[in-house]
Amino acid sequence: MTRIILGLDPGTATVGYGIIAADANSLKHIAHGCITTSKEQPLPTRLDHLAKDLRRVLREYRPDLVAVEEIFFAKNVTTAINVAQARGVLLQTVAHFKIPVEHYTPLQVKQALTGYGRADKQQMQKMAKIILELAALPQPDDAADALGVAITCANSSHLASLRRTR
Amino acid sequence: MTRIILGLDPGTATVGYGIIAADANSLKHIAHGCITTSKEQPLPTRLDHLAKDLRRVLREYRPDLVAVEEIFFAKNVTTAINVAQARGVLLQTVAHFKIPVEHYTPLQVKQALTGYGRADKQQMQKMAKIILELAALPQPDDAADALGVAITCANSSHLASLRRTR
Repeated sequence: MTRIILGLDPGTATVGYGIIAADANSLKHIAHGCITTSKEQPLPTRLDHLAKDLRRVLREYRPDLVAVEEIFFAKNVTTAINVAQARGVLLQTVAHFKIPVEHYTPLQVKQALTGYGRADKQQMQKMAKIILELAALPQPDDAADALGVAITCANSSHLASLRRTR
Repeated sequence: MTRIILGLDPGTATVGYGIIAADANSLKHIAHGCITTSKEQPLPTRLDHLAKDLRRVLREYRPDLVAVEEIFFAKNVTTAINVAQARGVLLQTVAHFKIPVEHYTPLQVKQALTGYGRADKQQMQKMAKIILELAALPQPDDAADALGVAITCANSSHLASLRRTR
């Protein structure tokens, strides 16, 4: 059974998304890209723009499962608060479509892709390219991260065991 | 000209709301209450529940303006992240109705109601009761806070000057 997984890398200015198809034997790339909002607009308008564009992605690709990166807040609390506001909107929008959501920390994503918790962005892009057999490195960063989140979700033991029992 | 102002005190488990009518000479209480979500449910479902109930409040009271409390994150970053996720959903839901949003810090709300930045919850409830000529202290806390945010918005110099020029 093939499952379509949408990975999301939350942000206020940019939300990366990556869509893959996972079955018992393989992972296939479907699409990746970014939703961006304008700094010229007030925050509530930007958040509404994110919701609208995410609804478009959900309608187009009809994922069975959405995987969303957790917020890493060690660096800057104000940034974390802003990303959290966007993340809330993404979660609510997905819930409105009745699609289940899984959560992964940046550490889990790095370990799942490279086996190494401190991998840098380029290492992550390279591994996403290899795993999904892409012709080039996935761009931009946020979309590559989102593919990483989707791959992590597909390979998580929980889902792997679900695949085995079907 | 009377403006209906909705104040919101964000949270994941409870969102307080308070609605007042403000004109050049007076503030009148319309309603206050809480939207609550169940801890038994996953976060995305709870956020979708908040959005649904807020849409109901927006349709019932048709505010001209929504005032939302900023997040105070000095105490606990994890709590702040959770509240921020709920706050994002509230802002997006209001933006979807094309209603303008104002933001106030807890300090601004305390100073506007009591003239004192470290006022406690009971002092805030007492001042809301006096200002809005209520028969009893507004309950629960979160709803009283939301009335405080709406009062702060009505009395902010920006809006007061808007009222004078009309």
